[in-house]
Amino acid sequence: MDMINLSQFELVSNAFSFAIAVMGAATIFLFLGRSQVAPQYKTAVTISGIVTLIAFYHYWRIFDSWQGAYTVTATGLQATVHKFNDAYRYVDWLLTVPLLLIELILVMRLSREETTQKAKSLATAAALMIVLGYPGEISAVTGEKWKWWILSMIPFLYIVMNLVSGLTKSINAQPESVRQMVSDARLMTIVAWSFYPIVFVFPMLGVGGAEATTYVQIGYTIADIVAKAVFGVYIYMIAVRKSETNA
Amino acid sequence: MDMINLSQFELVSNAFSFAIAVMGAATIFLFLGRSQVAPQYKTAVTISGIVTLIAFYHYWRIFDSWQGAYTVTATGLQATVHKFNDAYRYVDWLLTVPLLLIELILVMRLSREETTQKAKSLATAAALMIVLGYPGEISAVTGEKWKWWILSMIPFLYIVMNLVSGLTKSINAQPESVRQMVSDARLMTIVAWSFYPIVFVFPMLGVGGAEATTYVQIGYTIADIVAKAVFGVYIYMIAVRKSETNA
Repeated sequence: MDMINLSQFELVSNAFSFAIAVMGAATIFLFLGRSQVAPQYKTAVTISGIVTLIAFYHYWRIFDSWQGAYTVTATGLQATVHKFNDAYRYVDWLLTVPLLLIELILVMRLSREETTQKAKSLATAAALMIVLGYPGEISAVTGEKWKWWILSMIPFLYIVMNLVSGLTKSINAQPESVRQMVSDARLMTIVAWSFYPIVFVFPMLGVGGAEATTYVQIGYTIADIVAKAVFGVYIYMIAVRKSETNA
Repeated sequence: MDMINLSQFELVSNAFSFAIAVMGAATIFLFLGRSQVAPQYKTAVTISGIVTLIAFYHYWRIFDSWQGAYTVTATGLQATVHKFNDAYRYVDWLLTVPLLLIELILVMRLSREETTQKAKSLATAAALMIVLGYPGEISAVTGEKWKWWILSMIPFLYIVMNLVSGLTKSINAQPESVRQMVSDARLMTIVAWSFYPIVFVFPMLGVGGAEATTYVQIGYTIADIVAKAVFGVYIYMIAVRKSETNA
């Protein structure tokens, strides 16, 4: 791996610290805000806060792992014997990505059967997507990376198709006052989640070693902030609005 | 950069530690006090506490970075290979400055449309102000510093103008008992925020290297304490007063 330079190291460090602050702030906001929604929406808001809390924990680990992987010397940055641990991201996603879909389903307040069925199928597909992505992420062989990327895209596309077609009827059944917001939350999921497969392919498209490392780390961080913290607050806002109209 | 001396190092260390204590204390006060305000003001108080919590986190990082940047030896203070990370401040402001304006807007309890519109325009201007300030902060070239200072002043003046003219009608519509307090909170924002562009120009006005470093760090710390902790408690007091009059 090409060695990153000091300013790349600092840029990524600052992005990780930013994510720690955002995820922590979102967690507290959601846990406190939970008291402001009707009982039937409390679980959706609780899960939103749990997702950002899990991410807060992992970004703390990611930050520490990043600091430990390099050392600043008088002549510049040097790699240590400790490799940066990318697995924290995948462990995080394995937990949070199924939960994010469950948040969206819960705030819609479908029938019990529909909730269970959709939660199971979408959460399973989400976990599968993460599990299939990881071997590609850690492989240094471009062909291997593409193979796992393609395999991981199958559950990803299944989720997107389900969100687009399967949820349309349910969204149309939402109260008028939140219909647009729920539709926006769905769109936010699709757009934010599309970042991940795009960031994944940076190193496969010939973006140079050190630059690719920097872009991949910052790209994933931005995607996580949108998909978890911004999305979570949006779910909360939908829950507040629905609580007001007693829907 | 001219080297600071041991007493300057200690003075700044103590100022950072003071900020950690104040921000932590304000956070707990606001989170506990949240139960004492009417439901419609809880979000304003929650956000006030989140702002001081984010600042608490960043002052902890700033303190550690400052300690790591220097080492005390038998012959005096020496710089280490680790540079003090000024970016923590900007990362903090990027998050907290838009939230501070949202606090003020939420406690005023305007119409939903007005709240959304003002929150969006002011928060965007605030984020832009921070983003435009950072390149100037890290540049060592005085001309560059002035250029970014001027660019950053444009959104700053937009915010001030909005607070002064745009909010006057809304302030006059506040209940009698809090009208003066809301007006004071607005004034506090304008005055405290004016510290920042003034502190920013210290190094550009020929205040010497080591002295400038000391003044800049202490100046920003005082400004942060007023703009976040004192302001947050003031927002809480307005919320309490408005809750009593059921406004």
